[in-house]
Amino acid sequence: MKPLKIVDKEFTSRLFLGTGKFGSNKDMEEAVLASGSEMVTVALKRVDMETDTDQIITHLQHPHINLLPNTSGVRNAKEAIFAAQLTREAMETNWLKLEIHPDPKYLMPDPIETLKATEELAKMGFIVLPYIHADPVLCKRLEDAGTSAVMPLGAPIGTNKGLKAETFLEIIIEQSRVPVIIDAGIGAPSDASKAMEMGADAVLVNTAIAVAGNPREMAKAFKLAVEAGRMAFEARLGKISSHAEASSPLTQFLNE
Amino acid sequence: MKPLKIVDKEFTSRLFLGTGKFGSNKDMEEAVLASGSEMVTVALKRVDMETDTDQIITHLQHPHINLLPNTSGVRNAKEAIFAAQLTREAMETNWLKLEIHPDPKYLMPDPIETLKATEELAKMGFIVLPYIHADPVLCKRLEDAGTSAVMPLGAPIGTNKGLKAETFLEIIIEQSRVPVIIDAGIGAPSDASKAMEMGADAVLVNTAIAVAGNPREMAKAFKLAVEAGRMAFEARLGKISSHAEASSPLTQFLNE
Amino acid sequence: MKPLKIVDKEFTSRLFLGTGKFGSNKDMEEAVLASGSEMVTVALKRVDMETDTDQIITHLQHPHINLLPNTSGVRNAKEAIFAAQLTREAMETNWLKLEIHPDPKYLMPDPIETLKATEELAKMGFIVLPYIHADPVLCKRLEDAGTSAVMPLGAPIGTNKGLKAETFLEIIIEQSRVPVIIDAGIGAPSDASKAMEMGADAVLVNTAIAVAGNPREMAKAFKLAVEAGRMAFEARLGKISSHAEASSPLTQFLNE
Amino acid sequence: MKPLKIVDKEFTSRLFLGTGKFGSNKDMEEAVLASGSEMVTVALKRVDMETDTDQIITHLQHPHINLLPNTSGVRNAKEAIFAAQLTREAMETNWLKLEIHPDPKYLMPDPIETLKATEELAKMGFIVLPYIHADPVLCKRLEDAGTSAVMPLGAPIGTNKGLKAETFLEIIIEQSRVPVIIDAGIGAPSDASKAMEMGADAVLVNTAIAVAGNPREMAKAFKLAVEAGRMAFEARLGKISSHAEASSPLTQFLNE
Repeated sequence: MKPLKIVDKEFTSRLFLGTGKFGSNKDMEEAVLASGSEMVTVALKRVDMETDTDQIITHLQHPHINLLPNTSGVRNAKEAIFAAQLTREAMETNWLKLEIHPDPKYLMPDPIETLKATEELAKMGFIVLPYIHADPVLCKRLEDAGTSAVMPLGAPIGTNKGLKAETFLEIIIEQSRVPVIIDAGIGAPSDASKAMEMGADAVLVNTAIAVAGNPREMAKAFKLAVEAGRMAFEARLGKISSHAEASSPLTQFLNE
Repeated sequence: MKPLKIVDKEFTSRLFLGTGKFGSNKDMEEAVLASGSEMVTVALKRVDMETDTDQIITHLQHPHINLLPNTSGVRNAKEAIFAAQLTREAMETNWLKLEIHPDPKYLMPDPIETLKATEELAKMGFIVLPYIHADPVLCKRLEDAGTSAVMPLGAPIGTNKGLKAETFLEIIIEQSRVPVIIDAGIGAPSDASKAMEMGADAVLVNTAIAVAGNPREMAKAFKLAVEAGRMAFEARLGKISSHAEASSPLTQFLNE
Repeated sequence: MKPLKIVDKEFTSRLFLGTGKFGSNKDMEEAVLASGSEMVTVALKRVDMETDTDQIITHLQHPHINLLPNTSGVRNAKEAIFAAQLTREAMETNWLKLEIHPDPKYLMPDPIETLKATEELAKMGFIVLPYIHADPVLCKRLEDAGTSAVMPLGAPIGTNKGLKAETFLEIIIEQSRVPVIIDAGIGAPSDASKAMEMGADAVLVNTAIAVAGNPREMAKAFKLAVEAGRMAFEARLGKISSHAEASSPLTQFLNE
Repeated sequence: MKPLKIVDKEFTSRLFLGTGKFGSNKDMEEAVLASGSEMVTVALKRVDMETDTDQIITHLQHPHINLLPNTSGVRNAKEAIFAAQLTREAMETNWLKLEIHPDPKYLMPDPIETLKATEELAKMGFIVLPYIHADPVLCKRLEDAGTSAVMPLGAPIGTNKGLKAETFLEIIIEQSRVPVIIDAGIGAPSDASKAMEMGADAVLVNTAIAVAGNPREMAKAFKLAVEAGRMAFEARLGKISSHAEASSPLTQFLNE
C-alpha cells in the first residue's frame, strides 16, 4: 500500500487516533500502540494544564508517534489562533488540528471561523488540518487558504453513526488536491473500511475505540479495517449491479 | 479470536470463498491463498465435468483448505439430492453447500425445496450448509431439520450490493443455534466487516474478489476486514447515540 | 389513477388498514373512515369472541368497507385452516388474510406452513392473501398454489422501521402476476408513498396509525401519501443521477 | 394544518416549485398550477433576458403565486448583490432566493460568500432565502445575519437522490429559529413527505417534477405528499422500535 504523505511527513498507517474519553491514560496508551497509529491528537488543555504526575503526554512518548494538538473547545478564529500559538510553544510543533465548534450540543464546526483561522495560521507557518462539515465548496476554499489537509466529518462527533455524509464525502474526495481525512462519527471498523474504500486518505477515530468493551482489541480491529479498506481501494472494487449474476456455473449435467 | 466450529471442524479463518468468475484458475488459486480461507466452495459441474488438464481441483490442493461442493444450478430438492450423491462419490466429502435457485435472473433460493432437501440430506449423513433468503423462521425450521449451519444472503448473488437484508440478518443471528454464514451480495471489505460486527459466524465472498481489479490483493483486504469485524464483535462496539459527545475535553483555559 | 383489482373486487383506495392497537373502537372507526380505506383487516379472535356490546365489528359496518379477517396467532397450516373455516362461517366471507407466525418475538411468518395452507385454502375456495417474508421465490410458489395476492413485509410487524426489505420487494414487484400488497413495518406516510412509487399495488398499515398522537389525522396523512405514491408511479419518476444538474439556467448576463 | 409564515407572508401550500428544465413553458405552467404552490422560483436570467413573446413570466401570472427570483449562476457575494439589485428593479420584489455556487459540476453552494451576501442583502432590505449546504452552524450564522429562512439541501441539485443529508437536516430543524425549507435533491414524493415528517417547514422541488414522464401528475403527487408529511408531523408519528409488536391480538381460542 502507498504511504500517506502530508506536507513533508510520510505515514505508513492511515489511522489517526484521538485520545479523549479513555478510562485511563494506560488504557489509552495501550490502544494507541495496538492501533499502529503514527498520528495522535491531543487536546491542548489536557497537555498544558495537567499538573499531576500521570501526564497524558508521557504516555505518548513513542518514536513512531506524531502528536497533533487540537484546539477543541475554541469558539472562533481569534481563540483558535491564540490557542495555536500557545500550543506551538508548549509542544514544539507547528502541526495543528483546527477545531472550532461553537455549538455545545453537536459540536458541529463553524465554516466561517475555520476558514478565517486557516488563512491566518497558514500564513503564520502552521500546518493546518481543519475539522469541518462535509462541505465540498468549503474544502476548495480551505485549499486556496493554504490548508494542508481537510478533515470532513462522517457524522456528528461522538455519535458512532458512521458515514452519514457519504454523498458529500464522495464529492470532496473526487475534487480534493490535499489529503482527505475523515473525522468524527466513525463508529465501527466497517465504517473506517468503507471510508478508505471510497478513497479517503486516512480516518481519525476516537470515541469508537475509547468506549469499546475492550479498547485495545478495538484499536487492533480498526488497524486491520483501515488497511483492508485502503487495500481494496488500490485493488479496485467491482461494480454494484442490480441483477444477480451466478458466481458458480449452473449445473447443467442434470439436463445432459 | 475464537475459532469457528462447524460440526467437528474448526476454522481459524472466518472467510469462506467461492471460486466462480475468476479470470483463470491461477488467479483463483492466488486469491484463495491470499485470503487465508480454509473453506472454499466449488461447483459440482466444474469439478466432475472438466476434462482438460487444468482442473480447478488441482489448484485447490492445499492442506489447510477444505472443499465445500455446492449444488449451484439445481432447481428442486430432487435434483439437489441427486447432485449431492454424485458429489459425495466424486469428492469424497459429506459436506455440502446446498443451493436451490429456480430463478435464473436473481438466483434467489427456494425455501420449500431447500428445507425438503436439507431434511433428506441430513438423514443421509450429509453436513448441510444451505444457501437461503434471510428468513428467520426458515432458519429455525432448518435447524429442526438437521442443518449444520445457515447461509442467509446479504443481497442477491453477484450484485455486490452489501447487507440489504440487515434487519432480518440481525434477527437470524440473535436466534440461531447453528453457525450463521452470510453469503451472497457482500461487495466490499466493509460489508464483510459489518457482517462480522453484527455477530455473523463467517461470511462467504466470491464475486467481489473475482471481479476486482486485483483479485489477490482484494482477497487479502477481505481477510483483514473479516478479522477486523470479528475482533470488533468480541471487543464490543460502543453505542450509537443521537447527540454529539466531545471526544476531546473542551478547552477551558481561554475563559479562566 | 387506475383502481386496484383483486379477483373480482375493485378498490379505489390502495390503502388497507389493520384494526389492532387503537386506544378505543371509536378511535379506530374514526381513523378507518378518515383513511378512505375499503379493505380493513380484523383479527378472528376479536370478532367471534368478544361478547360485550361494543363489538369491533359494529364499528366497521360501512357500505364501502370490506372486512378481511386474518388468522393472526395461528402457528401452522392446520391451525390456519381451522381458523379460516370458523371465520368463513362467522363472517360470511371467503376472503382471508393468512398469517402464520410461530415466533412470538418478531412475528415473522412461516414460509412452509403459509404455502401449505395457501394450497389447501385456495382449493377450498378461499381468496387467500398471505402475509409473508419478502421472499421472491416464495411469491412465485404462492402464485402456483393459487394465491390471490401476496403480502410481503417491509420490516417486522409493529416496528415502524419502513422498507427494510426494499431490494427484495423490488424483485417481487417486478416478477409478480398477482397484486403485491406491502404489509408490516410501514411506519410513516413517506414509507407508504415509497412503496407505491416502487410499484406496489397497495399497502397495509396498522401500528403507525394506531399509535400516532392523533390517529385520525395520521390516517388522513396515509391516505394522501398512498395516493401521492401511486400517482408518481403512474406519472413515472425521473432517474437518479450521480451528478448535479442545474435546474435553473446559469446566469450568464454577468459575463456578457 | 398550520399555514407557513415567512416574514409577513402566509402560505397554505408548503411546496415551493422551481421552473427550470421543463419541456415547455406550457408544461411548466400546468405543473405549477397542479402543485398548488404559492411560491415559485424563477432564474433572473430567464426573466429579464428573454425577449421572445413566450416569456416565462407570463405563464406565472396567477393571483395565488408569489415569484421568488433566484441568483442561480452567480459565483460570489459581489455578483449576487449585483444580480439581486437588478432583480428587485425588474421584478419589483425584495424577496430573493440566494444561490451562490462556484462549482459547475455539483452546483454546491459556497458558505462563505452566501453568508457575506446575506448580511449585505438583509441590510439592503431584501428578504433573503439562501440555498446552502446542510450545515447547522452556518444556519445559525445566517440567522444572526438576518436571513428570513434557510434552504439547506437534501442532496446535490438535480440528482433526485433524496435526503442524503438527513442526519444534519434533523439538527438544523431542531435548532432553527427561522423556517427551514429543504431544497435540492428531492427526487420523489416520498422524499418530500419524509422531509415534512422530520419537521421541515417546506420543501422546494424542481427536477423531479420537470423531468417526470407526466409533470402535471407528478406535481399533483408532490402536492399530496407534502400535505401528508406535514399532517403526519402535526399528528405525531409513533416510535420506531426494534422488536415486533403484534398489531392483531393473537388468536388464543385455539388453545382454549
